[in-house]
Amino acid sequence: MGAEARLAELGIELPDVVPPVAAYVPALVSGSLVFTAGQLPMVSGALPATGKVGDGHGLVPADDAQQLARVATLNALAAVKSVLGSLDRVTQVVKVTGFVASDPSFTGQPAVVNGASLLLGEVFGDAGKHARSAVGVAVLPLDAPVEVELVVAFE
Amino acid sequence: MGAEARLAELGIELPDVVPPVAAYVPALVSGSLVFTAGQLPMVSGALPATGKVGDGHGLVPADDAQQLARVATLNALAAVKSVLGSLDRVTQVVKVTGFVASDPSFTGQPAVVNGASLLLGEVFGDAGKHARSAVGVAVLPLDAPVEVELVVAFE
Amino acid sequence: MGAEARLAELGIELPDVVPPVAAYVPALVSGSLVFTAGQLPMVSGALPATGKVGDGHGLVPADDAQQLARVATLNALAAVKSVLGSLDRVTQVVKVTGFVASDPSFTGQPAVVNGASLLLGEVFGDAGKHARSAVGVAVLPLDAPVEVELVVAFE
Repeated sequence: MGAEARLAELGIELPDVVPPVAAYVPALVSGSLVFTAGQLPMVSGALPATGKVGDGHGLVPADDAQQLARVATLNALAAVKSVLGSLDRVTQVVKVTGFVASDPSFTGQPAVVNGASLLLGEVFGDAGKHARSAVGVAVLPLDAPVEVELVVAFE
Repeated sequence: MGAEARLAELGIELPDVVPPVAAYVPALVSGSLVFTAGQLPMVSGALPATGKVGDGHGLVPADDAQQLARVATLNALAAVKSVLGSLDRVTQVVKVTGFVASDPSFTGQPAVVNGASLLLGEVFGDAGKHARSAVGVAVLPLDAPVEVELVVAFE
Repeated sequence: MGAEARLAELGIELPDVVPPVAAYVPALVSGSLVFTAGQLPMVSGALPATGKVGDGHGLVPADDAQQLARVATLNALAAVKSVLGSLDRVTQVVKVTGFVASDPSFTGQPAVVNGASLLLGEVFGDAGKHARSAVGVAVLPLDAPVEVELVVAFE
């Protein structure tokens, strides 16, 4: 089953491509790879939550952040589709980088970025397996809790 | 018009390649891509400003940081030229990653990294369009306010 | 001399591949490149040290962190070998990204990430030269002081 059929089966509708917040493009093809811009978890043009991820008052809980990583990844897939026409052309997700705006005491970045990894597995199956880095950064654009970028291979 | 002619028209003279501050090279060719090292906004061997970007006493203002991102990108282009011989060989800027040493309350990384993106547009035109990630990190080497790395395609 | 013989001469035995701490793979081949996941300095399944790098009480000294970057890079090489079969197939180390969990006042990330760069030079010689970015992040998974990812070319 192709990725587009899988998305339909999962009941997932890709969002519109999020317009870049600055002077760049959402995704770009080079050779057999697509590089996406770092994607924020925008929903209909706004961030559903802002702030640093961690445990405690005023912080974004890890479970919420995992869901936001999933949303950011949907935006990344929309960006990929915008340059490939169809996600069925994706042959392999190659690399995922997940930046988590983190309270300095929060060390659960891997679980947060699993919001991206699990979605990619659901949509692409074996072709969704990827190398991945998860890091905890000081702060992200617009005070987003997470930012996700992808490199995918296609035919 | 090629990138070298465009640089001349813009009155931009590329700096000398900044020697790596450690055991690596400024840029490296792999296949049809050039990967640059992360470039700091060094000018004649020194950083014009240091510290974290943000609003308030003792912080580097966002406008200054945008200019520093432009300087770091000039250094990155010098590194690219050092391995390609001429920037006219660049067919596409593929990916820009901009790290901004950020006060935790500063969320304007996209505008800062526009210092890189706008320069690339000026120099390369359509070929300067790129995917991009901008993140706010805790601190950068030598207390630099920004660090910029590029991936470019060439023929 | 090939990389495997060089490792033997150096008395270095690669560790077992560190199982990913989440839903991804340790390394992945795309075209003529291998992308590794971000590697932590795990030794036999545990981190020898945790915390932020810097000078002062409760921080990980830079010298220790440099050694940890070397360990993380050994794990990255184990990941590369797991997909290539032998490190002798590596033709070039292309890109190293070193994330250093940093106290905001610590600006010596280049020396820390040299733990990665120097090892790669020892093992691969000229083919170990690479482009590199070193950044200081707020916090890393499992409170690791460093995380290293590689892109290498192979035949």
